[in-house]
Amino acid sequence: MSIRIVALAGGVGGAKLANGLAQVIPAGQLTVVVNTGDDFTHFGLHICPDLDTVCYTLGGLANPETGWGLVGESWRVLEGLKALGAPTWFHLGDCDLATHLERTRRLSQGERLSEVTQSFCSAWGIAHTVLPMSDDPVATRIISAEEGELAFQQYFVERRCQPRVTGFRFEGIEQAKPAPGVIEALETADAVVFCPSNPWVSIDPILAVPGIRERVAAKPVVAVSPIIGGKTVKGPAAKMYAELGIEPSALAVAEHYRSFLGAFFMDPVDIEHAMKIERWGIMSMVTNTIMSAREDRVRLA
Amino acid sequence: MSIRIVALAGGVGGAKLANGLAQVIPAGQLTVVVNTGDDFTHFGLHICPDLDTVCYTLGGLANPETGWGLVGESWRVLEGLKALGAPTWFHLGDCDLATHLERTRRLSQGERLSEVTQSFCSAWGIAHTVLPMSDDPVATRIISAEEGELAFQQYFVERRCQPRVTGFRFEGIEQAKPAPGVIEALETADAVVFCPSNPWVSIDPILAVPGIRERVAAKPVVAVSPIIGGKTVKGPAAKMYAELGIEPSALAVAEHYRSFLGAFFMDPVDIEHAMKIERWGIMSMVTNTIMSAREDRVRLA
Repeated sequence: MSIRIVALAGGVGGAKLANGLAQVIPAGQLTVVVNTGDDFTHFGLHICPDLDTVCYTLGGLANPETGWGLVGESWRVLEGLKALGAPTWFHLGDCDLATHLERTRRLSQGERLSEVTQSFCSAWGIAHTVLPMSDDPVATRIISAEEGELAFQQYFVERRCQPRVTGFRFEGIEQAKPAPGVIEALETADAVVFCPSNPWVSIDPILAVPGIRERVAAKPVVAVSPIIGGKTVKGPAAKMYAELGIEPSALAVAEHYRSFLGAFFMDPVDIEHAMKIERWGIMSMVTNTIMSAREDRVRLA
Repeated sequence: MSIRIVALAGGVGGAKLANGLAQVIPAGQLTVVVNTGDDFTHFGLHICPDLDTVCYTLGGLANPETGWGLVGESWRVLEGLKALGAPTWFHLGDCDLATHLERTRRLSQGERLSEVTQSFCSAWGIAHTVLPMSDDPVATRIISAEEGELAFQQYFVERRCQPRVTGFRFEGIEQAKPAPGVIEALETADAVVFCPSNPWVSIDPILAVPGIRERVAAKPVVAVSPIIGGKTVKGPAAKMYAELGIEPSALAVAEHYRSFLGAFFMDPVDIEHAMKIERWGIMSMVTNTIMSAREDRVRLA
């Protein structure tokens, strides 16, 4: 198969499908473009949660139980931080910390995030191309009813997605340029895959980087619904749809992406929406989209 | 004993004597003022090697074999850094990293180094007062014959003190103010102790902070020679004297501090220098100054 694919991905769900794609598409023909709107600075370190989750998963290093973090992780540093009364809401594992430290060091030396990512991928034995959506800082801000604007990780980890969402803002997005390679990969792609990541805070930020949306729109796009039977496997996507006054469903996701979509994958439990989506001129593919086991990733890919 | 003491200290040797003093002087009567000229930024973290060595030693947390670092330390992060090809010349232990991370976080929130140090001391159960010489950044630069100016840690750890020293520069010293409490402690002190630390790069930077030298000069000063029989127990002090054209000896140290000294402690092997030092009007105290065991620290103190 010499089809060239660009996959847009956020965290855990996106990483799983990216991993499935990586097993069926030869290296050199798959580019995974990853959301960096979740990136933040913590303890002075530059942390890229989605990029790390995708790379750890592609490298076979991810903790299979949590979906994030590293397998065989230890927590000595975090214990030390606790003893000092430091904030420990973001779980910094010892091995994971090495990634954050070395990335921070290289960025401070003037390397670009995409260069650092490439070098890490090579250290982790990842043959496929992983690109941050941009080398420029973009910060996803959650606008909440009760608490105003929150930084994404503050909302997502520290506040456990509890604040009610009224909107989103991608700080810095107007000035952000696609990372080197993103536009080239999109222009030579045969198709673009929206992984089952959060449409609001994982896929939308990528599409919002100036130059990406129109390149994606020019290609056949396939999306996999992150919402199954009105719920998400992980993360706040369904809760966000509900809080924004939209019934959370595979249909809502298809509508979210409607202007792009050529085909839409949803779970058999969502078959009721298939006809409506077909009427929008989008091919409805009904298949098991839950990727519990490794084989599920490959099958779906 | 209600004598009030201020001890000036650098790293390992200074920390040992400070620890001895802490065991014979009640809390509230001992202030240890620590060199921060060795401080540096590594992987984005603010690292204070001397301050940490003194605190870990006073808190009974220091690794007894190395003199620096923490007892029971683990090295998971460092292994991860190695795997990424990161520089590993500075040994970042997992538990030690918690200190650097939390200090970096607090400083970035606007706390002062002296405040952070006080809070850490309280977490580590240290009853005596430990103060950085200054909250302002001072960077000891080593001027070398072959390689020009080197940052201190680069010289000390990365280059293992190999470059030949021709001089020193304390960058930022003119703008540095003594940390809150330093001047007060000196003004109410009955005596000042120069711990057996490196005169050039541990004690001199402290004395060079504007306002400290004249307060120290107004008090009885006692120094302990870090040079024994022409050699140091640890560190490059003797090598530095030699490279600067001064024969390394207890006598050279006494001469270094001559304008301050009331009394000078040296090892029995250096008894040949006692008469000369006495002739300068400085009391020569000859006693075993090597602090191998815990009891040695107390006895010397």
